[in-house]
Amino acid sequence: MGARILLDHGEGGAASARLVSEVFLRWLGAPPVLEDAAVVPGAPRLAISTDSFVVRPPFFPGGNIGKLAVCGTVNDLAMMGATPRYLTCAFILEEGLELDELDKIVAAMAATAAEAGVTVVAGDTKVVGRGEVDGVFINTTGVGFVPQDVTLSAGACQPGDRVLVSGPIGDHGTAVMLAREGFGIQSDLVSCCQPLADLAAVVLEVAPGLRCMRDPTRGGLATTLLELCEASSVGIVLSEAALPIRRQVRAATDLLGLDPLYVACEGRLIAVVPDHQADAALAAMRAHPRGVGAAIVGAVVEAPAKLVLETGMGGRRPLVALEGAQLPRIC
Amino acid sequence: MGARILLDHGEGGAASARLVSEVFLRWLGAPPVLEDAAVVPGAPRLAISTDSFVVRPPFFPGGNIGKLAVCGTVNDLAMMGATPRYLTCAFILEEGLELDELDKIVAAMAATAAEAGVTVVAGDTKVVGRGEVDGVFINTTGVGFVPQDVTLSAGACQPGDRVLVSGPIGDHGTAVMLAREGFGIQSDLVSCCQPLADLAAVVLEVAPGLRCMRDPTRGGLATTLLELCEASSVGIVLSEAALPIRRQVRAATDLLGLDPLYVACEGRLIAVVPDHQADAALAAMRAHPRGVGAAIVGAVVEAPAKLVLETGMGGRRPLVALEGAQLPRIC
Repeated sequence: MGARILLDHGEGGAASARLVSEVFLRWLGAPPVLEDAAVVPGAPRLAISTDSFVVRPPFFPGGNIGKLAVCGTVNDLAMMGATPRYLTCAFILEEGLELDELDKIVAAMAATAAEAGVTVVAGDTKVVGRGEVDGVFINTTGVGFVPQDVTLSAGACQPGDRVLVSGPIGDHGTAVMLAREGFGIQSDLVSCCQPLADLAAVVLEVAPGLRCMRDPTRGGLATTLLELCEASSVGIVLSEAALPIRRQVRAATDLLGLDPLYVACEGRLIAVVPDHQADAALAAMRAHPRGVGAAIVGAVVEAPAKLVLETGMGGRRPLVALEGAQLPRIC
Repeated sequence: MGARILLDHGEGGAASARLVSEVFLRWLGAPPVLEDAAVVPGAPRLAISTDSFVVRPPFFPGGNIGKLAVCGTVNDLAMMGATPRYLTCAFILEEGLELDELDKIVAAMAATAAEAGVTVVAGDTKVVGRGEVDGVFINTTGVGFVPQDVTLSAGACQPGDRVLVSGPIGDHGTAVMLAREGFGIQSDLVSCCQPLADLAAVVLEVAPGLRCMRDPTRGGLATTLLELCEASSVGIVLSEAALPIRRQVRAATDLLGLDPLYVACEGRLIAVVPDHQADAALAAMRAHPRGVGAAIVGAVVEAPAKLVLETGMGGRRPLVALEGAQLPRIC
């Protein structure tokens, strides 16, 4: 049996110091002296975002909680047009967690941070007793630099704009659900979990009129678009035929009575762009390895229309806010 | 029975939106539009720090987990000579938590953030099932602005320097332990939990030669000073007679076989200053409402000496790193 996390690993003494140096600093890089806060170069405009990750199981096809924790926060910065620069990681560990498991999670964080171009500058570890937390929870907080002329906002969408999505929706939520519950379904589906700052930068470059970007995580595409409708006082008409949804996601969600429009993505972005820049944005997304499955999926319309799905038969189904959880602990 | 947290409150849908607006934004302030990241003015040098808080019980004499979560992170920024500016808050809530309890915690965060001069710019809420987390855990991450000419470091201490502490040690850890365990001990002791940026700024002003500051949280004064010894390759001689320790802390730790030198403070700072600025730093601390109990407690000496306590009888007791926990879940 391998080594496990003990309460002592969280108490700031010698055991804590060993865990920090042997796991965290080994993967994430060691400063010459550990201070109370990192002091780093800044910029005139900052983007700041925070997220905690409680996904169960912590390992799933296409990723683990460490990779997810980096992508989730880095992507929130990127959606505001920021270049992600700094990341903090705070771990809450359950007594008894296998050290090997933690090591794999931290290794994935390091690899994903490198891929995303962010530096992990600060961290924290707490250990709580058995049954006081479920395995490992991670908080990441990110700081990015925002160029002076970039002002994206959920409140900036205008009637006539087009809505793009960078690839198939629902992959992450479905992959995690299948990993957790099984249901006897065999599937080769993997989470879409990936950092998106490079893809976002490409969109911003070819579509300077870009209104806003969002990554449709909890609540999926429909919930995210509803937020845009609300913030911009507009409606959005989605074309069912245009929505990229994988066969495996359709099959699994059909079987379980879930709507893929509400299932979380962790590696897709939504962009709302002026009509005349939509084709350029689409072409740029498709030319990027993280956006090959991109599509124009809808159009912004005048209020009082809200979010509507145009079905193949010419029907229109209103998409409303779900009260709560389709799938708990998906991120 | 009052309202309680449900899994739905964490899933990004309508229930989440209500919780965010009725509890978090009501206390912490609402931006016109909720974006994926806050975009805020920056500065050339930033301090960044993160901490998760898992204190049990969440309410204790002198504070609660919300007040503690703001103080802990703001103080880490202040110890680097930064002016704390922005704070993020991420909550992990257990299904069944009373909404009234959460409301009190968030209200305390808002009040403490105002006292500390920081703006809460981003947040996150996750809800997990009963037994998957113990009540409420909070992560805060802070960003501060660091003046160009300030370069404090744990590695900057030099033989001859003086070590100051801003008030009685061990109050926080002892107060939390008594609130949790009881032991039948009646005590009027309260946690020292308070934001320290204003006190730190005063010290920096009167003692421009300041080497470093630290807030002795987990592991207490002894553990923190051991870190300074290590980082600066020096020793520190503490005077037992000079150490400010409250009667109630002595009594409770004596009874329980704990050493107050290793018990957490959450509202005290340690400053290491050149000998010729020590009296000015002490006078400035004592003149400040957060530093009335300040004392000069030790001196930096040449290595290979490590941390040593000079007792009243002329004896010398080496203080070593504890392996692990005296008191788990104290912050």
